[in-house]
Amino acid sequence: MAFTDTIRDEADEFWSAILDHPMVARLGEGILDEGPFRYWVRQDYVYLVEYSRLFALGAAKAPTFDSMGTFASLLESTVNEEMDLHRSYAAEFGIDTTDLEATTPSPTTRAYTDFLVRTATLGSFGDIVAALLPCMWGFNETGRRLADAGVSDHDQYAAWVEMYAGDEFTELTDWCKSLMDDVAASATESDRERFRDLFRTSAQYEYLFWDAAWRQEEWPL
Amino acid sequence: MAFTDTIRDEADEFWSAILDHPMVARLGEGILDEGPFRYWVRQDYVYLVEYSRLFALGAAKAPTFDSMGTFASLLESTVNEEMDLHRSYAAEFGIDTTDLEATTPSPTTRAYTDFLVRTATLGSFGDIVAALLPCMWGFNETGRRLADAGVSDHDQYAAWVEMYAGDEFTELTDWCKSLMDDVAASATESDRERFRDLFRTSAQYEYLFWDAAWRQEEWPL
Amino acid sequence: MAFTDTIRDEADEFWSAILDHPMVARLGEGILDEGPFRYWVRQDYVYLVEYSRLFALGAAKAPTFDSMGTFASLLESTVNEEMDLHRSYAAEFGIDTTDLEATTPSPTTRAYTDFLVRTATLGSFGDIVAALLPCMWGFNETGRRLADAGVSDHDQYAAWVEMYAGDEFTELTDWCKSLMDDVAASATESDRERFRDLFRTSAQYEYLFWDAAWRQEEWPL
Amino acid sequence: MAFTDTIRDEADEFWSAILDHPMVARLGEGILDEGPFRYWVRQDYVYLVEYSRLFALGAAKAPTFDSMGTFASLLESTVNEEMDLHRSYAAEFGIDTTDLEATTPSPTTRAYTDFLVRTATLGSFGDIVAALLPCMWGFNETGRRLADAGVSDHDQYAAWVEMYAGDEFTELTDWCKSLMDDVAASATESDRERFRDLFRTSAQYEYLFWDAAWRQEEWPL
Repeated sequence: MAFTDTIRDEADEFWSAILDHPMVARLGEGILDEGPFRYWVRQDYVYLVEYSRLFALGAAKAPTFDSMGTFASLLESTVNEEMDLHRSYAAEFGIDTTDLEATTPSPTTRAYTDFLVRTATLGSFGDIVAALLPCMWGFNETGRRLADAGVSDHDQYAAWVEMYAGDEFTELTDWCKSLMDDVAASATESDRERFRDLFRTSAQYEYLFWDAAWRQEEWPL
Repeated sequence: MAFTDTIRDEADEFWSAILDHPMVARLGEGILDEGPFRYWVRQDYVYLVEYSRLFALGAAKAPTFDSMGTFASLLESTVNEEMDLHRSYAAEFGIDTTDLEATTPSPTTRAYTDFLVRTATLGSFGDIVAALLPCMWGFNETGRRLADAGVSDHDQYAAWVEMYAGDEFTELTDWCKSLMDDVAASATESDRERFRDLFRTSAQYEYLFWDAAWRQEEWPL
Repeated sequence: MAFTDTIRDEADEFWSAILDHPMVARLGEGILDEGPFRYWVRQDYVYLVEYSRLFALGAAKAPTFDSMGTFASLLESTVNEEMDLHRSYAAEFGIDTTDLEATTPSPTTRAYTDFLVRTATLGSFGDIVAALLPCMWGFNETGRRLADAGVSDHDQYAAWVEMYAGDEFTELTDWCKSLMDDVAASATESDRERFRDLFRTSAQYEYLFWDAAWRQEEWPL
Repeated sequence: MAFTDTIRDEADEFWSAILDHPMVARLGEGILDEGPFRYWVRQDYVYLVEYSRLFALGAAKAPTFDSMGTFASLLESTVNEEMDLHRSYAAEFGIDTTDLEATTPSPTTRAYTDFLVRTATLGSFGDIVAALLPCMWGFNETGRRLADAGVSDHDQYAAWVEMYAGDEFTELTDWCKSLMDDVAASATESDRERFRDLFRTSAQYEYLFWDAAWRQEEWPL
């Protein structure tokens, strides 16, 4: 059984918790206040910069030339294309590039991205894949479940759902799952146990990232 | 003016916030419930393991042989001596080594230690010093201020205060401040700005670490 | 004065030594035996894989989003485009992809790339730039000086010279120099001294890389 | 069969080549010129500084608290004790601490230590163990074989042989072999193949390190 099949049930619990979160539920229905969403858009920008470092470290540690090439493409397209899309999308909510770049990482964004970078620097290539998978898998599942439930009238929220539910993002997710399965297939049981732990931690952070936006979380001091 | 003097006022605000936190205030008065304190002891064990990695990475990146030697000593004494003390102290609260090692890092412990390790792997030697300083400085200040306010009847809490207020820990703190000042003196203004940011983030986490114990924080899912 | 101007004379001595090396002189005249050149082509393939890791680590440590984007592009184009060109070029000498991938790094290739990767993992962003500059600058200078001396009848060697003397590679070199100058301008004198040392070490390796091909160097045991 | 048993024959070939090298043979007979030996003493000092970074990185990546403790002790004793012994020993050859610290790494010292540090930063804990084993194992074997062949009249050379043939260094070597065996026992076949490659590379460098001293190797430019 493929590794991602062995963790599917556990993963589903995370995606269900995310779907049940008021922030996500309201986003899907198109009735979410724009305050929390603007907060999310800004934090997601900070997140993507750090997520890019993960791709870079994945390329640096890639065990084969093919996997180095894939991480190089992911890094390049994230940094030089997706960030532009993110900026255009942010602009529709009145957030310009200066605002995006001036965003202070929230406690949760800081915690999640530090976890990712720490895993990528001290850990193995397989650890990197395990830590980055929940972001792709979780967004794809969320997008698809929201799309299945019906598209809302809110143009930007609907576009958001369509992007993560779409074929392109689904293919990216499938590639990442398949890479995880390949890495896990040739790893030891103790490696797989660690991959599972890393996956769980990132999946927790996926939930917390929504929750932080909903609460518009700030540093206490 | 030494770098640590330039951040002293800002640092004081963090130490004051810590001293005002009910967890710390009650610890000083000897009236803290043992539940939150046991939680703290267990999380502090997890923290020290990761803090040790910081010393190891400091030794690996040390620019001079002298500073490598100091980090080597800190690492060795933390791993091979202080952890034993920690275990004995924990035993007085009925927590044995098996419990300590089975402790799951709380969200805050995870966040703080991932921040430290991430800073130590991608950052410079000076970044490492800036990130580790608040733990020493904060505990020393907290210990000294609590000691000045008078020692409580609670034997273990009083011993705790005395340890962090004591000469040995004060010397360690002074050494760390002095190392920070040396590194900052030969750094650029933009480096110093980054050191200040790293210091602030760790200082926030020092506060949050107490707060997490007070709330006996757990992962949401 | 820009940093690269302060090291120009010293750099010139390295490029002159390279130009005077029989391997390079004969390459320029089109009279080089293909044995050493085939050796060079294979080792250069191994080198480029590791050089790509340098770009990846540069992206991971990039201090600004712009520089992350540039390193991401360099990584992506090296891994997904230049390596293909390299494979086509190698094929003209009867070396297929299987041969390239089966190449054992020579002692010099191993030494040079381990130096680069070590610098990129423990060092700063500026260290990375200093260590990677001699490869670009050296090849550009070598290409241009050989082109100035007149193009040979050997089609593949002439193409080699034209590539490294060409506008595209010159622009890449100018960009790298300019990045080095920017980083050095905002660094301390002691940083700049270290950049110079790293530059010198890589420049030595540039010379040794040619020399290893000329001698068709092998491991002793 | 323990991993170190599976590589024993191959390892023996390296140790035999080292024993047959004129530098080592003459050292054992007490008839080695002091020029190459002084060169060796100075390069060995540079080597030990970098070898210490390997222990530090081993501690940072240690998978268990026990192994972190052992690497911490090795680091601490190397940096704060063995280096002192090394300085005293060097002084008997008229090399003072200033000379030691002013030593430029030779091409071979640079290559070997960059290989070690690169392996320790991008590789796994097992990779670190594989890369550091040949230094201990090789010196212990060399010391013991030279001691078996009879002690020479040259006081310092005889002391050198006795140190590496002695019980303390033999125990350290046995510990390192046993750690390698433990790590390899729970690794995949492909991990073990990589450990073997790393072992071979370090073992080659052990030979080359003697050869570089014999030739009093310098940088070409």
